[in-house]
Amino acid sequence: MSASAVTIAQDLIRCPSVTPAEGGALASLEALLGSAGFSVSRVTFQDEDTPDVENLFATIGSGAPHFVFAGHTDVVPAGDENDWNHGPFEGVIDGGMLYGRGAADMKGGVAAFAAAALDYVADKGADFGGTISFLITGDEEGPAVNGTVKLLDWAKDQGHRFDACIVGEPTNPERLGDAIKVGRRGSLSGTITVQGVQGHAAYPHLADNPIPGLVRLLAALDALTLDDGNERFQPSNLEIVSVDTGNPAFNVIPARCEARFNIRYNDEWTLASLKAKITETLEAVDLGNLSLDLEFKRDASESFLTRDETLIKALSDAVAAETGRTPELSTGGGTSDARFIKNFCPVVEFGLVGQTMHKVDECVAVADIDRLKAIYGRFLDSYFSGANNI
Amino acid sequence: MSASAVTIAQDLIRCPSVTPAEGGALASLEALLGSAGFSVSRVTFQDEDTPDVENLFATIGSGAPHFVFAGHTDVVPAGDENDWNHGPFEGVIDGGMLYGRGAADMKGGVAAFAAAALDYVADKGADFGGTISFLITGDEEGPAVNGTVKLLDWAKDQGHRFDACIVGEPTNPERLGDAIKVGRRGSLSGTITVQGVQGHAAYPHLADNPIPGLVRLLAALDALTLDDGNERFQPSNLEIVSVDTGNPAFNVIPARCEARFNIRYNDEWTLASLKAKITETLEAVDLGNLSLDLEFKRDASESFLTRDETLIKALSDAVAAETGRTPELSTGGGTSDARFIKNFCPVVEFGLVGQTMHKVDECVAVADIDRLKAIYGRFLDSYFSGANNI
Repeated sequence: MSASAVTIAQDLIRCPSVTPAEGGALASLEALLGSAGFSVSRVTFQDEDTPDVENLFATIGSGAPHFVFAGHTDVVPAGDENDWNHGPFEGVIDGGMLYGRGAADMKGGVAAFAAAALDYVADKGADFGGTISFLITGDEEGPAVNGTVKLLDWAKDQGHRFDACIVGEPTNPERLGDAIKVGRRGSLSGTITVQGVQGHAAYPHLADNPIPGLVRLLAALDALTLDDGNERFQPSNLEIVSVDTGNPAFNVIPARCEARFNIRYNDEWTLASLKAKITETLEAVDLGNLSLDLEFKRDASESFLTRDETLIKALSDAVAAETGRTPELSTGGGTSDARFIKNFCPVVEFGLVGQTMHKVDECVAVADIDRLKAIYGRFLDSYFSGANNI
Repeated sequence: MSASAVTIAQDLIRCPSVTPAEGGALASLEALLGSAGFSVSRVTFQDEDTPDVENLFATIGSGAPHFVFAGHTDVVPAGDENDWNHGPFEGVIDGGMLYGRGAADMKGGVAAFAAAALDYVADKGADFGGTISFLITGDEEGPAVNGTVKLLDWAKDQGHRFDACIVGEPTNPERLGDAIKVGRRGSLSGTITVQGVQGHAAYPHLADNPIPGLVRLLAALDALTLDDGNERFQPSNLEIVSVDTGNPAFNVIPARCEARFNIRYNDEWTLASLKAKITETLEAVDLGNLSLDLEFKRDASESFLTRDETLIKALSDAVAAETGRTPELSTGGGTSDARFIKNFCPVVEFGLVGQTMHKVDECVAVADIDRLKAIYGRFLDSYFSGANNI
């Protein structure tokens, strides 16, 4: 009897694993994979100023090629549960849809891959000619400090060398088969602070208002065309996300004003060249006696593009075969744990339809979970048989 | 024996009359003026959303000309009293300086005028050929809702018609005799709100960031030259005093952003023409689909210039005679209760040296209090004898 992806997804949704809580979700996976012969490790990571988080690594088979499926069982909070038509942790199926927090992002994806791998191993036996591993974190929706980034190092220390990875994040905007993500833009955030001299609004000659200077800096940033994009990536984009003074008085000129920005950038830039461009743009603005402080956030990420044609073709063909649709090879959207994995092996992303992720009444079509399982299964067949044919 | 302005000032400083508390200050004045034959009224005003405040009106003499001295006994808070070298409510004299909250702003001025009026009436008798009144509020440093503005209406209802007024605010930047204020710029404040569409910083096409629009609006305001001033007033000036978004997340495009501004403007503008100019300037900026909301604060004031040459000359001559200095006729600085009084009679302002007002260790020279009393006394002589000579 084949494994039911939908049942596994329901079991996972019923575990209230809001970051950083494990909520029973990893224990459930451990039992499922362990009983099928996987070697399962539960590892907890800790760091300063952030909660301890549990993670899971499971592996079966031996030798190359070593394929790894990456995902997370933690979910964002449900908000007010009264706003949900179906309890966020109940896993109710209604009208062909499976409801619950994490249904799309990404317990449904984890369940589909687990079911596909269980079937594949049951069919081929543990000696299928390679290795299949699971890299499952409980810290993707949180600070992402005690999750994938440390689990990758841990697996490396254990001697694991991965040849390819699929991240099961919901990559499809509208319909299963819309898009495979083959890269991601980088992200760079920063804070601009302009310091002037406080004073009374009636005596401006005794003060030096930082706001007009900040306005000129922001106008310079807004006027910047970073690039026009290329065949692989959309144009890089800068957003000023907040400007704040916090001065409650109309008759006081403030001493200080700050603005924060975020840039999503493509492979026309490196992190270093982009930082240099921003610094140069701001420093070219005449600020008189005002002083400028520019601080880049430390959580910046580089852009990346996966060029492993074999991996991309095997997944793309599997998607096309099961959905009748040729997936777009996309590099849009936000960041994911793929930004860590790309330093270890070629990585692509494909999962469910993301429309309801992070929203009330998050849900996915039951049929999509089954089809995603079929896509992953077809991929495993192709990947390992292709590898064996080389 | 002549009245001691310094003793009266010390008595007033020892009353902790931080707005809206009466603190015993008005009671002290009531006793002093009442015992000298003044008819004294204590009146409490109230309004929505603001504390009840006590005020004092005292009058002596009869008929025209009716001269009124205006001032306040309330003071701003002392802050941390440990920061003071002399207790803010002790009225200590040290090294020729009288220390305490309100010494300059403006218990010293009230005391100087009270002492001058007491001496004048003691010398001339109550039938000196006119009327002298005191318009003393306890709500100048606060919302100014239950103070001078209502006391003026109350006095009018009681049948009082004023011919001239001196406000005893500290008008001298450095030395007694520096400046008489003969007018004030108007003040207009407003809030600009730009509304866009919230979204994820990685998906800017699904959002509409209000910040670049606000930056363009603020650049337009900053580029505005309202006027070049004239022989009576300095140039009008606009300050952007706060820009606020309150968005804590780097990956979220905010829905809304606001900025607040304050304009100090001269008699080249009316409140209406200035509002029209600001509105027109903002509306000329291309905001795309963003929406703009401009709201002017209701506490705006018109500029004014007092043109009563007799009043100005009498005060200016008295200052020159006592200080050897010809005071500048100034229209600079912030607003005062003169903005309300100018609707009832010609008004000018002259008091102590303002350098330490609102600061820790607020103080004035004891000699200045005595000289200010002499200036006010000389003015009363000149004003009433001049008036009688007409």
